[in-house]
Amino acid sequence: MEGLMMDYQLTIDRILEHAYRMHPHKQVTTKLPGGTMHRYSYADLYHRVKRLANVLGALGIESGDRVGTFAWNSFQHLELYFAVPCTAAVCHTLNIRLSPELLAYVVNHAEDKAVFIDAAVLPVFEQAADQIGCVEHYVLFNVDSGVQTKLPNVSFYEDLMAQAFEDYEWSGMDEKAAMGLCYTSGTTGNPKGVLYSHRSVYLHTMGISHANAFALSEQDVVMPAVPMYHAMAWGLPYACAFAGADMVLPGQYLKPSDLAQMIADQKVTVPAGVPTLWSGLYEELKTKPRDTSHIRTLAVGGAAMPRPLIQAYETELHVNVMQGWGMTETSPVGTLLNLQSHHSAILEHAQWDIKAKQGYPLAGVEMRIVDETGELLPWDGVAMGELQVRGPWVANSYYKVKPSPEHFTTDGWFRTGDVAVISTDGCMQIVDRAKDLVKSGGEWISSLEIENALLDHPKVREAAVIAIPDERWIERPLAVVVLDSDAGAVTEEELVLHLDSKFPKFWLPDKISFVDEIPKTSVGKLDKKSLRHRYTGDPWR
Amino acid sequence: MEGLMMDYQLTIDRILEHAYRMHPHKQVTTKLPGGTMHRYSYADLYHRVKRLANVLGALGIESGDRVGTFAWNSFQHLELYFAVPCTAAVCHTLNIRLSPELLAYVVNHAEDKAVFIDAAVLPVFEQAADQIGCVEHYVLFNVDSGVQTKLPNVSFYEDLMAQAFEDYEWSGMDEKAAMGLCYTSGTTGNPKGVLYSHRSVYLHTMGISHANAFALSEQDVVMPAVPMYHAMAWGLPYACAFAGADMVLPGQYLKPSDLAQMIADQKVTVPAGVPTLWSGLYEELKTKPRDTSHIRTLAVGGAAMPRPLIQAYETELHVNVMQGWGMTETSPVGTLLNLQSHHSAILEHAQWDIKAKQGYPLAGVEMRIVDETGELLPWDGVAMGELQVRGPWVANSYYKVKPSPEHFTTDGWFRTGDVAVISTDGCMQIVDRAKDLVKSGGEWISSLEIENALLDHPKVREAAVIAIPDERWIERPLAVVVLDSDAGAVTEEELVLHLDSKFPKFWLPDKISFVDEIPKTSVGKLDKKSLRHRYTGDPWR
Repeated sequence: MEGLMMDYQLTIDRILEHAYRMHPHKQVTTKLPGGTMHRYSYADLYHRVKRLANVLGALGIESGDRVGTFAWNSFQHLELYFAVPCTAAVCHTLNIRLSPELLAYVVNHAEDKAVFIDAAVLPVFEQAADQIGCVEHYVLFNVDSGVQTKLPNVSFYEDLMAQAFEDYEWSGMDEKAAMGLCYTSGTTGNPKGVLYSHRSVYLHTMGISHANAFALSEQDVVMPAVPMYHAMAWGLPYACAFAGADMVLPGQYLKPSDLAQMIADQKVTVPAGVPTLWSGLYEELKTKPRDTSHIRTLAVGGAAMPRPLIQAYETELHVNVMQGWGMTETSPVGTLLNLQSHHSAILEHAQWDIKAKQGYPLAGVEMRIVDETGELLPWDGVAMGELQVRGPWVANSYYKVKPSPEHFTTDGWFRTGDVAVISTDGCMQIVDRAKDLVKSGGEWISSLEIENALLDHPKVREAAVIAIPDERWIERPLAVVVLDSDAGAVTEEELVLHLDSKFPKFWLPDKISFVDEIPKTSVGKLDKKSLRHRYTGDPWR
Repeated sequence: MEGLMMDYQLTIDRILEHAYRMHPHKQVTTKLPGGTMHRYSYADLYHRVKRLANVLGALGIESGDRVGTFAWNSFQHLELYFAVPCTAAVCHTLNIRLSPELLAYVVNHAEDKAVFIDAAVLPVFEQAADQIGCVEHYVLFNVDSGVQTKLPNVSFYEDLMAQAFEDYEWSGMDEKAAMGLCYTSGTTGNPKGVLYSHRSVYLHTMGISHANAFALSEQDVVMPAVPMYHAMAWGLPYACAFAGADMVLPGQYLKPSDLAQMIADQKVTVPAGVPTLWSGLYEELKTKPRDTSHIRTLAVGGAAMPRPLIQAYETELHVNVMQGWGMTETSPVGTLLNLQSHHSAILEHAQWDIKAKQGYPLAGVEMRIVDETGELLPWDGVAMGELQVRGPWVANSYYKVKPSPEHFTTDGWFRTGDVAVISTDGCMQIVDRAKDLVKSGGEWISSLEIENALLDHPKVREAAVIAIPDERWIERPLAVVVLDSDAGAVTEEELVLHLDSKFPKFWLPDKISFVDEIPKTSVGKLDKKSLRHRYTGDPWR
C-alpha cells in the first residue's frame, strides 16, 4: 500500500524558487577580476538564471546535454549551477587545474555541447582546444572587450543575456534526471565521471544543512573558497540558497591576504576550503591580524588538516575548526567533525586529537570498514580497513563505465579506496589511501601518519611518504621532505629521531629525501603517483 | 538521462539504524504511570524495536496492515513508532481524546488489525470497544498485573516481548510505501485519514531539523509534550533519533508542575507543545521558579500563542519562543518562526509582533494565498486569502476518499482551510479558519484577531468568537468569554471598549456571552462547531 502524499519531485528549481521567494534580499558577493566587488541579491540571481535558461535554449542545449563550465567561483558560475540543471541539462564542472591532455579528455568524454569560460582562465583552456571535437559553442564571461582567442564559435555571456527574455517556466523534471557531472581528479588512470541527479543533490543539500553538519541558516555568510570547479564546492552553493545564507565568492583571489580581507569585510561566518588555504591564512592573520570574530566554523576538507594547525586556530585565533571528509563520488560530503555532547568534559588537548579526525557520517550516510576479504571490521579505534559508504548521495557507477567490483561492491556499497579506522563512538579517521599504504614485511604502515608526524617538526613544511621496493621487506617507506626556507641545516638523523618515539621501529623511513618542492595534483593534493615514478622509475605504481 | 547515484530508499529503518550506529548511548526518558522515570538508550530502543518487529510478525501483522496505538508519549509508543513501519505495516495513532463514537469510527475505517493500548487510557478505549469489529488483537502495556478488561483477545506487551527473538532483518521497503496513518481532529464532518509514506516522513524529518527550523542536533534534549497520538508529535520522535538528541517523554504527566520539574531535571533544551500547556507552565514558573536555563527554544504550535504570553516568556523568564504552524495533512510542520537576520536591529516590541505570527515555510514547503475565485493574492501583509501549500510531506488525498476540489486544487496544492496574510518578507500569519470568519455586510471579520485582543485583557482567560445570523448584515460576531476566577465583575461594555481602539467599528461584537467553560475538541482547540450549535441551534454550521 502506497502512502497518499504528494509526488513532489526533489529538483534544483525548487531550491532556486525557495531562495527567490523566501530570501530575495540575501546577497551574493563576488570578487571580480581587477579586484572590484560585485554584489547582487538572490532575486537578481533568480531573474538572471531565467534569462540564462533562455540563452541555453537559444544555443540549442536540450534535455540531458552536457554544458561545461571552466571558471573560478563567481556569480556567473553560480548562475550556471542553477540554469543548466533547471533546464534539464547537465552542468559539467571542468577542473581548471587539469593538464591540457586531461582537460581535453574529459570534455570529449562528456561530449560537452557548450562550454562557458571565465576569461581569467581562457589561456589555460586554449591549450586544450585543439584536442577537443565536440563543443559547438564557447561562451566567455568576465571578458575584456579586446579579448583575442583561438577558440571557434565564441560568444559573450553578457551579450547573450542582454538579448534573452527573462520569462522561463521550469519544465517539471523527474528527480532522478542527471543534473551535474564532475570527474574525479584522477590520481590513478583517467578521470572518471560522477553523474549527480537532482534528487541526490537536493538530499545532499538538506543533509549538509543539518544542525549536526554545517548547520547552515539564514544568519550565515558562507565563503566557499573550495572551488566550484570540483565536487560542487562541497554543495555549499545549493545549501546556501536553500538556507538563505549570504554567499561570498572569492573568484581568483585565494591569496591569504585576499581571503583574510574578505572574511573581515564581509563578516564571513563559514569560510570553507582545503588545509593549504587555511595554513596560509593562519600565517597571514598572525602577521597582520584581521577581524575574524564572525567566524563560527572554519570548514576544512579535501585533505587532513594537521592537528597543530587546528590547535593554533583554536587557541591563538579563537576560531572553531570543523574538519570533514568526502569524495567526488559522495557529492561530496560524507563525514564532518563537530564535537559531540559526550566530549564536553574532556581536556582541550584531547579535543584537538578528535578534531584532527575526519568525523561522523552525516544523517543519511552509512559507512563501514572491511578487511581485504570483504569481512566487516569492528569500530574499535584500532582495526584498519577499507572505508565503504552508501547513501542517497553516493554514486552507483561512473559515467559511461560499467560498474566494476573494483569500485562498487555487489551488496551496494561504494569502495572509497581510503583506509580508515573508526572509533567506538563512530568517529572516522582516514589512515591512508589504500594504494599509498606501505606493506613492509607483511605489516601495513600508514604513509599519512608518518607525514603528519613529520609536519609536526617545526622545520618541515611539506612531507610525502611513499613505498619503494625492497628485496627483503617487499616495500619500505621513503620520506620526501620540503624544509622551511629559514630552516637551516637539518639532517636525516634529526628527523628520524623526531619520529622515533611515535612509531614502531619498522615504521621509520630508511631514507629521507630533501627536495625543493613536492608535485601536486590538479586539486592540490600530493601527487604520489609522480613521486613513485620519480623514485622507483615505475610509471604504473 | 538519469543520474548515476544510488537508488537509496528513504525509509524509517534508516533513521533507526542511524540512531543505533551513531548515537547508541543517547537517552530516552519516560515518566511512567506512578511517576517513576524510565530511562534507556537508543541502543536499548533499537534492540527492543527488533523484538517488537518479531512480536508483530507473531500476531500475524503483514505488510500494509494497520496497527493502532492508543497511548500517552512513552518509550513503548516510540517502539511502536519504529517497529510498525519498519516491518512495512502502518502505524495508526489513535487520538485518546476522541469520543467513543469517533474512536470506533476511525478504528473501523482504518480496519486496524491490532491495537496497542497504554493501560493508563484503557477505560477510555473500552467505551468504544463494543462498536469496533475489525481488531484481532489488543496488546496492553504499562499494565498492572491485576488489570480487568472487557476487551477480547488481550495480550500483554512485555510478555510478548520476552518471548520474541531479538534478531530481525528489515525487508527493504519502497520509500513510497505507507508508514503511518493519522486522522484529522474532525472539527467538520467525520475525521479524515492522512496516510504518510516513508519518504514523506524521512523528508519531513530532515526538513524540521534544518538550522532554519528546529535546528535539532545531538546536543539537544527534546521534550515532546505535544502528543504522539496526533500528527506524529510534530515528527520530533523521528527527528530526535536522526539527530541523536535525547528525548524526554512526559507520559500522562502534563500538569504544569510536572512539566516544569522535567524541564529542570532533564535539562531540556526544546520543550514542544500547545499554547495552553505553556500558559500553565508560565503561571507555574512564576509561582515556583525552576531551572529553565537549558531551554534554547520553547516550541509552540497547534494554535496561536498569544503575544502577551510570548512577551512574558521572553522578558520575565528569558526563554526564547518559536511559534509554528502545521496540520495533520502537512506531516505536520509547515512553517516556523525564527527571527531572521533582517530583524536583528528592530525593537523588542516589534520582535514580539513578529513572533506572534506563524512564521516562514520550511525549506521544502511552498505556500500561497488565493482569493475565493482561486486568484493568487500578493504577499503584502494586507491581502487575506486561503492558505494553500504543497511539498514532499503534504498529503495529496485522504485515506479511502476520492480527492475532491474542496481539499485539493487541480494544479496540485492542498487547501488548508486556513485564511492567512503573508508579509512582504514571506512571514505567514493565520487570520482565521475559513469557516470561522465572520462575513458581515460583505466584509470579512477575523474571529481569531478579536479573540487575541480579548485575551490581551487582564481579566479574560479564554475567548471564542463565532458568527451568528443577522437579518441586516447576514452575520455578526458574538464573543464567548471565560473570565479569570479572581476577575470580579466585568461588564460587556468594558470589554467592547477594550476592543474599540484596535478594530473598525463593524468588527466589534454586538454581544458578549460570559460562560464558565468553552468546549474543546479532542486536541484541545476551541470547539466552535459546538458553540455555533449552542448559540444558533444549527448543528450544520
